[in-house]
Amino acid sequence: MQNKGNLISFRPDIKVVDCTLRDGGLVNNFGFSDEFVKALYRANIKAGVDYMEFGYKASKDIFKKEDYGKWKFCEEEDLRAVVGNNDFDMKISVMTDVGRTDYKNDIIDKKDSVIDLVRTATYIHQIPAAIEMIQDAHDKGYETSVNIMAISKVREEELDNGLEILAECDVDYIYLVDSFGAFYPEQIRRLTHKYMEIATKHNKKIGVHTHNNQQLAYANTIEALSIGASLADATVSGMGRGAGNCYMESLLSFLRNPRYNLVPIMDFVQTYIKEEIEKGSLWGYDIPYLLTGIMNSHPSAAIKFMGEGRTDYSRFYQELLDHME
Amino acid sequence: MQNKGNLISFRPDIKVVDCTLRDGGLVNNFGFSDEFVKALYRANIKAGVDYMEFGYKASKDIFKKEDYGKWKFCEEEDLRAVVGNNDFDMKISVMTDVGRTDYKNDIIDKKDSVIDLVRTATYIHQIPAAIEMIQDAHDKGYETSVNIMAISKVREEELDNGLEILAECDVDYIYLVDSFGAFYPEQIRRLTHKYMEIATKHNKKIGVHTHNNQQLAYANTIEALSIGASLADATVSGMGRGAGNCYMESLLSFLRNPRYNLVPIMDFVQTYIKEEIEKGSLWGYDIPYLLTGIMNSHPSAAIKFMGEGRTDYSRFYQELLDHME
Repeated sequence: MQNKGNLISFRPDIKVVDCTLRDGGLVNNFGFSDEFVKALYRANIKAGVDYMEFGYKASKDIFKKEDYGKWKFCEEEDLRAVVGNNDFDMKISVMTDVGRTDYKNDIIDKKDSVIDLVRTATYIHQIPAAIEMIQDAHDKGYETSVNIMAISKVREEELDNGLEILAECDVDYIYLVDSFGAFYPEQIRRLTHKYMEIATKHNKKIGVHTHNNQQLAYANTIEALSIGASLADATVSGMGRGAGNCYMESLLSFLRNPRYNLVPIMDFVQTYIKEEIEKGSLWGYDIPYLLTGIMNSHPSAAIKFMGEGRTDYSRFYQELLDHME
Repeated sequence: MQNKGNLISFRPDIKVVDCTLRDGGLVNNFGFSDEFVKALYRANIKAGVDYMEFGYKASKDIFKKEDYGKWKFCEEEDLRAVVGNNDFDMKISVMTDVGRTDYKNDIIDKKDSVIDLVRTATYIHQIPAAIEMIQDAHDKGYETSVNIMAISKVREEELDNGLEILAECDVDYIYLVDSFGAFYPEQIRRLTHKYMEIATKHNKKIGVHTHNNQQLAYANTIEALSIGASLADATVSGMGRGAGNCYMESLLSFLRNPRYNLVPIMDFVQTYIKEEIEKGSLWGYDIPYLLTGIMNSHPSAAIKFMGEGRTDYSRFYQELLDHME
């Protein structure tokens, strides 16, 4: 077992991305109050978080602005209303989905934007289109990363090919993503080794993004970090679609870099996460998410089940078996 | 990485212990309804669970019977009222605490009891007393196991010595226990290798018992199993003191042995666990348990904090720092 770093020292190359607004926005349709967003921004700065992701840069042709909160679109003026010129160490990121982003118009030159990192989310078959988007963002002056989604359903050979061509483009970080919360730590271990091998060869870095369907989001995140991933996504209290994500509270408690501070995040939970839950936002581990996780399928059926207040788990399990892809 | 078994095949030597009544009894003072206990017994049999632990064999000199539910004491007639002669594959276990069990009188000969496995819980300094208890149970005809508790606070040399003398006695299983939910998977990995080395030498087997303070109970359990542990403790929905235990639902979903069946456990959750929560039983991951976990301390302060309905996590963190041992 060759680990990078150990449990007492720290690796200064590890950086943390807060995705609460972006992944959490999938829970409440991006309906965060301005107070929530401003308080989260302040909390993240105090906590030493390295990147804060504000949301998506979604196409206004495809999605109507009146149907979503503003962080679905992350307009420059909305960002600046929160961060001003962002005169802090913490960097700002946004996500762009292949095929759902008008990136040529909506991603402006870096010199005119407070955004630092543009993250592209792609399915395996969209990688050529993703590379165009990455190149566009890179040429405009941004740091870039790419998430290859749903790889638990992708055959090994295709994944290898996809990783190779991505590693040859101007992307800074390639993310290992467990979209369905389907992976066990020993699979994350093997995959991280694979990603690291390709990354090292091409001078790229690896990120990790997990889901908590099997209560393994945090375990899988620290597993990937221990092998060499250096960018870790987390959300406060795991807020995110369905079972949610890796908990920021846990991740910061694991990292030994003195730049990180758990206290501002706990204070944020006490006020703002509690309030969000009282408003009816629903996420976090439950049996239906475990079932979609172990069956390696999209959590949408489980989200519907939970939203309807159902508790007939066995019947739901049979329904899932009826629709195995 | 040398794993025992892989993710598709299964190891028939792995067995599962349901500790819902014993660990869960610490949540509700063993105040389970008879219906709960009978339904759990039936669910475990249908689910293929290998052992069901009914509770403690606590000394009636030290603990008053009127202060607790009956599963604090597991009297033979109370067991038989549920299991009859237990004419099923599933075995029955009870736990005995060193110094708190009148084992000479309360553990009767195996031939007169439906109990199959007597589990002894000991702190490192009590091991000589534990060995007497184990020998007593072994001589009376029971299978035996031993839990060395709180090893995250024990120096390596003492642990090595403790393991060596335990491995020389007539115990069948030695448990790797994470009492405070303080261990990370990479520590569990190293410790399981240590336990396995000693166990193999003395022809013993290894069990694993985890807590969910850091949402790592399940991850740590499957980590230990992948290295060679063969007895795994879990509770339905993780019911157990504080942050609770490894979830039975997760564990059964991980094991590929066709003897296990998740459906009866999900049905039990739907009716009986939901009811238990409505009655006010409180357990499961929350920030205060994360904090006692990362600080490697007993969850009692966190249980008190949660019981008082407090949410001032940062203040609680400072209180813990003030009382670091």
